Amino acid sequence: MPELRKDPVVGRWVIISSERAKRPSDFQPEPVTPRATTCPFCPGNERYTPPEILAARPPDSPADSAGWSYRVVPNKFPALRIEGELEPAGEGLFDRMNGVGAHEVIIETPNHDASLASLSVDEVADVLLAFRERAVDLKKDPRFEYILLFKNHGEAAGASLEHPHCQLIATPIIPIMVREELTGSADYYRRKERCVWCDILRQERRARHRIILERDGFVVLAPFAPRFPCETWVLPTQHRAAFEESQVEEMRGLAAVLGDFLRRMNRVLHDPAYNFMLHTAPLNEPSLTYFHWHLEIIPKLTRVAGFEWGSGFFINPVPPEDAAAALRDEES
Amino acid sequence: MPELRKDPVVGRWVIISSERAKRPSDFQPEPVTPRATTCPFCPGNERYTPPEILAARPPDSPADSAGWSYRVVPNKFPALRIEGELEPAGEGLFDRMNGVGAHEVIIETPNHDASLASLSVDEVADVLLAFRERAVDLKKDPRFEYILLFKNHGEAAGASLEHPHCQLIATPIIPIMVREELTGSADYYRRKERCVWCDILRQERRARHRIILERDGFVVLAPFAPRFPCETWVLPTQHRAAFEESQVEEMRGLAAVLGDFLRRMNRVLHDPAYNFMLHTAPLNEPSLTYFHWHLEIIPKLTRVAGFEWGSGFFINPVPPEDAAAALRDEES
Repeated sequence: MPELRKDPVVGRWVIISSERAKRPSDFQPEPVTPRATTCPFCPGNERYTPPEILAARPPDSPADSAGWSYRVVPNKFPALRIEGELEPAGEGLFDRMNGVGAHEVIIETPNHDASLASLSVDEVADVLLAFRERAVDLKKDPRFEYILLFKNHGEAAGASLEHPHCQLIATPIIPIMVREELTGSADYYRRKERCVWCDILRQERRARHRIILERDGFVVLAPFAPRFPCETWVLPTQHRAAFEESQVEEMRGLAAVLGDFLRRMNRVLHDPAYNFMLHTAPLNEPSLTYFHWHLEIIPKLTRVAGFEWGSGFFINPVPPEDAAAALRDEES
Repeated sequence: MPELRKDPVVGRWVIISSERAKRPSDFQPEPVTPRATTCPFCPGNERYTPPEILAARPPDSPADSAGWSYRVVPNKFPALRIEGELEPAGEGLFDRMNGVGAHEVIIETPNHDASLASLSVDEVADVLLAFRERAVDLKKDPRFEYILLFKNHGEAAGASLEHPHCQLIATPIIPIMVREELTGSADYYRRKERCVWCDILRQERRARHRIILERDGFVVLAPFAPRFPCETWVLPTQHRAAFEESQVEEMRGLAAVLGDFLRRMNRVLHDPAYNFMLHTAPLNEPSLTYFHWHLEIIPKLTRVAGFEWGSGFFINPVPPEDAAAALRDEES
C-alpha cells in the first residue's frame, strides 16, 4: 500500500509509492559528464572569472593568480546584480522590483577532478569558513534579507561547469520556501514551546531507523516525508538558528560528516548528480528560538513531472527507512 | 538589470534574468525520444493495461478490444491505490495515512505517432469530455477531495511511454499548491470583492503584451511572473471555478485553443517535452466565487537546480513579454 506522509514543518504531503518501489541501488543516474572546454575555475585561468572577492593563497601571491587553495568570485552570469536599489513598483495588480542581490561562486579546490567527497576535512572546512566569511560580510548590506548557499553537482542537477564549486545568492526578500519553514517552525513553537527540529532529532535518535550516521556533533538522517529518493538532511545536534554563528569546530564537524555522507552516497547510488541547500535563519533574525539550521542534500535520481508541478505532492519510490538502511550500512 | 516579479495569487517571486537572457528559439530541448518496445497503449495490445474504465468504441465492440478512439484505464503502477480506507495515524510528531486515491490514464488516440497538437478539435474535445466524465464519477467517492488532470509529454517531462496519453490522480487531501492558490484567491476576493483571475484577464487583455492568442472563449497568455521559460496559462473568459461544470461547447473551445497553442509552441520551441496541469476547484467546492479554473503548460527547457529547491525562487531566462511575442507572431 502506498503511504501519504506529511512534513511536520511545512505541511507538505508526499506519496511513498509501493507500486513503483525501488531500492536505492536500483537507480542508474545520468553520469556527471566532463566537458572538454577551457575550465575558467582551473589555476592559471583566473582571468576568465571576475576579480576574486576572497581567496586562500600564500602571503606573497597576488590576487587572481594561481597558487590559491580556494577562491570566491562573483558569478559571471549573475541571477541578481549587486548594483542598484530595489525600486519596488506596481504594474496594475502586479508587483515587481529590480533584481538586486549578490551571486558568488566558491571554487572549492584548484583540483579540477576533486570533489567534496574526495577533499580532506580541512579543505571542506575551509570552504564552509569561506561561506561564513562571505555571509558575515554580505549581512552588512541592508538591502539583503537572506543568503542561500547551494551546490549543483553534475549536469542533471543543473551544474554548467564540472570543476568543484558551490554558490551563494543573497536576496532582497526572504525566499518563500524559507518563509514557509519559518512559519511552520514558529507555529510548532507556539503550541509546544519547543523547537520542532530539536524534537525531530530527539524522536529520530530514539527510533534509529531513519538515522544514517551521527558524528562530530551532527546527525544525518532520511526525513520522514522526503520529496525525493534518498533525500538527506544534516542537522547539528546543538540548537542554533543561523549557520554563520557556528564556531570553527562546528564547521570542521560538518566538513567531516558531509564528506562521510557523500562517499556513502556515491557508492550506494553510483556517483549521482546532486544538489545541496543550506537552510539557515534570515540575516536579520539570527537568534530565533524556533529555527534550527540544517543542510538538505538531494541526489538527482528521478524527474519532476506534471503531478508534482500541479499539486506540490511528490511521488517518492524509496521509503526513507530503506534509504537510511542502505546508506547506514555502507562503510564510509 | 534582472527583475524580481511576484505572482499576484500565491505570492511567489521569480527572477527574470537579464544576464542569462535567452530568446525562446534559443533552446535546444532534448528530443522526445521514441522507444522500441511493445507499446501497451496501442490497439491490439489492450491486454497489457488493466481493464478499461471508459472508452469510445462502436456499439458492438467488446471492452478491451481494438476499435476504440480513446480509452481510460487504471494506471498499472498507480501512485495511489483505489482500495482501502485512509486510516490516518501518528508516529510521534509525524502524520501519515494510507495512500488511497485513483490514478487513471486517458489514452488519447489509437495512433501511436499522433499528439494533442496533431489531433482534430473533435478528438481533443473527446479527451476532455472523457476527463469530465471521470471527474463527475470520482466525485461521488467521499474519500476524494481533489482530482488533478495532467500530462507528461516526452521523457524530459517525466513520460515513461510515448503513446499520447494524459493522467488523472484523485487525492484524499487538497494538494498544497491548490490550497495556496485557493488561499491567495480568497484573500484577494476579501479585499476587492473580485476574482483575481478575472482581474488578471481584464488587465492582460487591455495591455496585450503578454497575450499569446484569444479565441473560442479562451485567453492564452504568458503569466506576469512565470517560473519557467515560455510557461503559458489558458484561462476561460467566463468565470467558473470547476472545470467539470463546463459545457460541451467550452470543451470544444478549449480543444481548439489548446491545439492552436501546442502547434505554435512546437514550431517556436522545436517540439519540446512539456507538462500541463489543470487547476480546478476542489471536488466539494465547485462554485467558488473567488477561484477560476485554468490550464498551465510548461515546456521543459531548463533544469531546476539547488537555488530553486532551496528557496522557491525560480530563475527564468525568458521575459514573458518576449515569450508571448514569439508565440503570438507564429501562425498556428
